[in-house]
Amino acid sequence: MIIGGSASQKLAAKIANELKCPLIPIETRRFPDGERYIRIKGELDNEAIVVQSTGYPQDENLMELFLILKNLKSMGIENIKVVIPYFGYGRQERRFKSGEAISAEIISELIEVAGATEIFCINLHEESITDFFQIPTHNLSAMTLIASHIQQNLDNPVIIAPDKGALGFAKEIADILGCEYDYLEKVRISPEVVETKTKKVNVKGKEAVIIDDIISTGGTIVNAARILKEHGASKVIVSCVHPVLVEDALLKIFAAGVDDVIATDTLLSDVSVISVAPLVAAAMLK
Amino acid sequence: MIIGGSASQKLAAKIANELKCPLIPIETRRFPDGERYIRIKGELDNEAIVVQSTGYPQDENLMELFLILKNLKSMGIENIKVVIPYFGYGRQERRFKSGEAISAEIISELIEVAGATEIFCINLHEESITDFFQIPTHNLSAMTLIASHIQQNLDNPVIIAPDKGALGFAKEIADILGCEYDYLEKVRISPEVVETKTKKVNVKGKEAVIIDDIISTGGTIVNAARILKEHGASKVIVSCVHPVLVEDALLKIFAAGVDDVIATDTLLSDVSVISVAPLVAAAMLK
Repeated sequence: MIIGGSASQKLAAKIANELKCPLIPIETRRFPDGERYIRIKGELDNEAIVVQSTGYPQDENLMELFLILKNLKSMGIENIKVVIPYFGYGRQERRFKSGEAISAEIISELIEVAGATEIFCINLHEESITDFFQIPTHNLSAMTLIASHIQQNLDNPVIIAPDKGALGFAKEIADILGCEYDYLEKVRISPEVVETKTKKVNVKGKEAVIIDDIISTGGTIVNAARILKEHGASKVIVSCVHPVLVEDALLKIFAAGVDDVIATDTLLSDVSVISVAPLVAAAMLK
Repeated sequence: MIIGGSASQKLAAKIANELKCPLIPIETRRFPDGERYIRIKGELDNEAIVVQSTGYPQDENLMELFLILKNLKSMGIENIKVVIPYFGYGRQERRFKSGEAISAEIISELIEVAGATEIFCINLHEESITDFFQIPTHNLSAMTLIASHIQQNLDNPVIIAPDKGALGFAKEIADILGCEYDYLEKVRISPEVVETKTKKVNVKGKEAVIIDDIISTGGTIVNAARILKEHGASKVIVSCVHPVLVEDALLKIFAAGVDDVIATDTLLSDVSVISVAPLVAAAMLK
């Protein structure tokens, strides 16, 4: 039985469809004063799968998730699997300066206290977040889905990480496609001049696919796209798992001359063309 | 040492002043993607008092509170007193229909898990919420403060509860002031006509003070004010502890001919003229 939070209604329906499970109707709305109201309307058995992304508005989506989980727990459901397609606060998983809140830790703890018994995430920004949970936690990778999409749409791709931190994603996709991959590196040419360029691959005449886990403000991607165009890439495609896309990020990316942007449906966006539903369903059936 | 959440900055400062305690600087802001960032910048000893109201935006204020509490806990602070001047979700403290989330219960549990060791609330809508906490929980009444304010500003008051549920508040204030009190009752005159009027007191020529714990949409208050005017009250004053005041509630109340609206500073509003800081400080020193 699948329960979709308000941030993941369509994805919940797709997962239900993949698993041939019923989608339980819930009533989720706000009172005039802004307080969230949750009512689970269907008949439940002893297992429930809750799907809720915790992107913007993060706090509202998290509170809704807590209310759903605790409600299921108080109704006696023992097995509560939680799918968190995008894990909000996932970039605040350590204390960089003294006195900083380790937000990902407290959120993990609250999700567990609220009633979760198993967690499914997709491309957590930091794998170490799984350690904040005491219950079984799975960090699934959507790179295979992105690789398939590239394979179906491009003839001569080369996969480019916008920085060294994202190189693992480029390698993961390139290994599936049997194509080249690389990352963009900042090289100091003189004391005043820093040039950013691909480490080893020549992108001239090739379809360059930029890959990252999250695109947020888009600044890194815009810069990467401009460089790849300058280096003669025939096309520049931007891909990511989580299209956070703050404010006008997507517009800025297209304005940089990018030919297409593709992302998964872990978050709702204009470019969420790849569904993670088969990935989640397969993990559930394991 | 006092830490103010972003919903209760001025009240935290007033409580710090009453207690002659330092107000600890914290950095609380949002990243471009909307995620809250918290950093506690001061040196802490083994005890902290956190002040955070959880009115609108409830979920953001709650998440900020969870982040502050867990952060203090992870920094080794053992004694964490939490002042929640207005307790959001306090009207969802039981299951009215099957499948409904008992929101006040899960929120209480999360506040405790996050690190609170003692709770101070003011006029909880339902006293039973204190039972959701395993830690010591105090439900303070601000009615004495409201009574003092009435005493200083009115000569011939009569205290009116807008419905029977609020009668206890009217009695609490009237007992302090030694004046009359009553409530408004719906009386069926004929099968088609229901009249609302005071149960026993004649308000003609008197300064009628409507009292309730919370004013939300203001509908009940507008109705009560009109009736008291019709019955010849020389003035109609509206008072409450928690000025939730959804959207244009305050405007509607004034438009109904109300002479003044007074409330406490458990929530920020145009009419938060009475500070609960002395009440909270006194409870802390007990």
